[in-house]
Amino acid sequence: MLPIKWRPNKHSSMPLYLQIKEYLRRKIELGEWTVGSRIPAQRELAKAFGVNRSTIVTAIQELVAEGLLEGQGRKGTIVINNSWSLLQAKQPPDWINYVQTGIYYPNLPTIQQINQMEFQQQMIRLGTGELAPHLFPHQKLGQILKDLSKSSLTWGYAEPKGLLYLREQISNYLRSFGIHASPASILIVSGALQALQLISLGLLKQEETILVEKPSYLQSLHLFSSMNIHLIGLPMDQEGIQTEKIASLTQNDQASLLYTIPSFHNPTGILMSDRRRMDLLKRCANIGLPIIEDDVYRELWLDEPTPVPLKARDQTGLVLYIGSMSKIVSPGLRIGWIVGPEPVIERLADIKMQTDYGASSLSQWVVAKWLASGEHLSHTEFVRSILRQKRDITLSLLQQEFSNLAKWTQPQGGFYIWLKLCSAISIKKLFNEASKQGILLNPGYIYDPLESNALRLSFSYASMDELQVGIKRLAQLVRKLK
Amino acid sequence: MLPIKWRPNKHSSMPLYLQIKEYLRRKIELGEWTVGSRIPAQRELAKAFGVNRSTIVTAIQELVAEGLLEGQGRKGTIVINNSWSLLQAKQPPDWINYVQTGIYYPNLPTIQQINQMEFQQQMIRLGTGELAPHLFPHQKLGQILKDLSKSSLTWGYAEPKGLLYLREQISNYLRSFGIHASPASILIVSGALQALQLISLGLLKQEETILVEKPSYLQSLHLFSSMNIHLIGLPMDQEGIQTEKIASLTQNDQASLLYTIPSFHNPTGILMSDRRRMDLLKRCANIGLPIIEDDVYRELWLDEPTPVPLKARDQTGLVLYIGSMSKIVSPGLRIGWIVGPEPVIERLADIKMQTDYGASSLSQWVVAKWLASGEHLSHTEFVRSILRQKRDITLSLLQQEFSNLAKWTQPQGGFYIWLKLCSAISIKKLFNEASKQGILLNPGYIYDPLESNALRLSFSYASMDELQVGIKRLAQLVRKLK
Repeated sequence: MLPIKWRPNKHSSMPLYLQIKEYLRRKIELGEWTVGSRIPAQRELAKAFGVNRSTIVTAIQELVAEGLLEGQGRKGTIVINNSWSLLQAKQPPDWINYVQTGIYYPNLPTIQQINQMEFQQQMIRLGTGELAPHLFPHQKLGQILKDLSKSSLTWGYAEPKGLLYLREQISNYLRSFGIHASPASILIVSGALQALQLISLGLLKQEETILVEKPSYLQSLHLFSSMNIHLIGLPMDQEGIQTEKIASLTQNDQASLLYTIPSFHNPTGILMSDRRRMDLLKRCANIGLPIIEDDVYRELWLDEPTPVPLKARDQTGLVLYIGSMSKIVSPGLRIGWIVGPEPVIERLADIKMQTDYGASSLSQWVVAKWLASGEHLSHTEFVRSILRQKRDITLSLLQQEFSNLAKWTQPQGGFYIWLKLCSAISIKKLFNEASKQGILLNPGYIYDPLESNALRLSFSYASMDELQVGIKRLAQLVRKLK
Repeated sequence: MLPIKWRPNKHSSMPLYLQIKEYLRRKIELGEWTVGSRIPAQRELAKAFGVNRSTIVTAIQELVAEGLLEGQGRKGTIVINNSWSLLQAKQPPDWINYVQTGIYYPNLPTIQQINQMEFQQQMIRLGTGELAPHLFPHQKLGQILKDLSKSSLTWGYAEPKGLLYLREQISNYLRSFGIHASPASILIVSGALQALQLISLGLLKQEETILVEKPSYLQSLHLFSSMNIHLIGLPMDQEGIQTEKIASLTQNDQASLLYTIPSFHNPTGILMSDRRRMDLLKRCANIGLPIIEDDVYRELWLDEPTPVPLKARDQTGLVLYIGSMSKIVSPGLRIGWIVGPEPVIERLADIKMQTDYGASSLSQWVVAKWLASGEHLSHTEFVRSILRQKRDITLSLLQQEFSNLAKWTQPQGGFYIWLKLCSAISIKKLFNEASKQGILLNPGYIYDPLESNALRLSFSYASMDELQVGIKRLAQLVRKLK
């Protein structure tokens, strides 16, 4: 998994294997490949350098002979020394041990792979939960940058809760969904994911429990489990989370929070009905169970306007509300917000200050100017019109290709379709095979560890052509692995 | 500490106390002042609203009579109900309990106060560790924004380690200090503080120990102690950290890392000599003790160029190197970097992805274009010329005002002077008295809990005039409290 950009020069008078040997030696000597680390597999190196595997073997053999590397059978080839340590017999630091003992769990291997493969060219991304980049409002954002270039306000720190001007704009914006929140009860965060990290570090203690949907976006994160906080999944139906079990699950003080994405749920695309929302709010209010309402897909309704948020009906400060600029305007700005009772917002702002001294001021100014510009509504309508087409074509492709192979949800908005295969095949194998064929998938087990048979499809990123090619190829693969 | 922007309308026919009562009621009903929270003190409210304290008392008495508030003596006035909960007898969530039980410790109260007061106008900031905002290269950064406004690259996510183009620029930039690091061994972070958070979550386990300078910037953060990681302070002399004690402190596997700011140390301003650097590196290499080299002030030398970084002499991947754009170009961009062995960088990048999906792409582009523009050197020279003047005037003011009152360090660069008072006065009291007189200080106990008699002065933020007024007034206060 070590990405390599360098290639040997085929026109040099120095033999290829020697160039490669010197390159590898340099990585080791500079300590970038530290003692104890495994170097990439021979076939990976051959591919990365564009040479035969035998050339790699020769280079490695010489480094083994010099005592820098050692083949350790199935564990691969390990860095056991560097020339400096050979000469001076000093003890190199045992970084591998450090890397393995940190408090935070690593991301799931599948997610690490996805994070890497997303930056490979020409992947058809059937799972990616982002808008295709050409749908961002480049021109209008460019105009905002141009306007900001004349200002001198953008380069210093913002206030602990975030730029006041931005919080005022967000306060106005939230009012359009029925949420009344003063700027003092809004915290700017570096994207919705950070909101969850701040909550995990600031509001919960070890061994507490969060109720989530089953499957849930939260299962794809290790933020909470790294802190020994447990997730319990509640089943869903077509109207959203099934609320009957909440009371019994919280009876022994087991659950401290309920996390939900009521609008166009990640990963299933399900929209919680208005009736269910009221029921959920009532049940949670009855037992004093706070709710985290992750509402980042709210504006992406495709058939009819989204029911009002839980937060709009919240009169006791029961709901922490999370929103973001990433799903419609630009994920690269990394701007989101949390709305909640002031003591909670003050606490989270204090942790934010300990984490990164606040989000990029420049990004905050861009978002504030964007919301103030009045362009947001018409841009959102444009995005909806494109997503509507993409959803429709995806659903008809599924009808065509998967009617005997799977069942799936019919999303009324958002990015996602939950595809459940009829026969049990190895999704891990499907993921690997598809990757080889240039298709990037999001396996369902990311969102529910016990779900062995599902995929999260997304129609937001791939182009119409890619959807067509990708879904056909995916169906072929499923048939082959069945 | 709840900032209030609203003021009653003095020209309204509605009495002031009623306007205030309705404002307070609204805060409570919306759940922004949640049940269990303390409302601001009467005199603070009177000041914020621009009314007499008796007006506040009347408004509060009515809300007490209605059962929303309760006076609890020294604990202040507490929200005990909101009209919704009174009407419906529902159980409001106990947020105050949540806020108090999170894993992360709150910032020190003094730091929370400083974070707030920094956004009050007309404070003379004698402790702030930032450049005065007019010293940022506004024009050149503005030009970069203008150029970027024509590009469409800036709005999507960057790679897990950060924008490759930026890492290439940083790789070049680091070479000018003698550090050879390939882009693959560089991680972009949202400021140097986040680098420390990633290290605390990714490389250490509970009950481990970090060696630090005494005093140390790390003592001002709760990142590590929140994770039950201990800090042990090593004394310093004029050449930096005293290295003799390192071996004994690490003998029983007590220490897992050493954290140092060798160049213009925060908070003392001390520069580690070249000789001491070599000694430190040798001793740590001997026992395999990794070093975090926080080098954010490196370029701010005022007398002669800074000795080469520890990292430049590091041949076994012993050193994790931290740099930042915040001290010279713009803190609002929130861009820093960590350089280290690839397995460590991969691990920290994975945690970064779990934390906030990467730093603002827009900020990353701005920094990359800045470094590529070749303007960095001449801007740094300009900043140095200003800081040199400010340091000199500050030192001569200290000579004039404090020669009988204190001893202080003579910094050769950076932002800081460590001022140690001769007679024992309460620094907490000095801090509070100075705040009232419009002077914001950074007490020494922030950086060393056992230090009762020192201040971190900074000559980077305040103007020449402010330095003159501020230091004079500070001396008067010290004399008064003596």
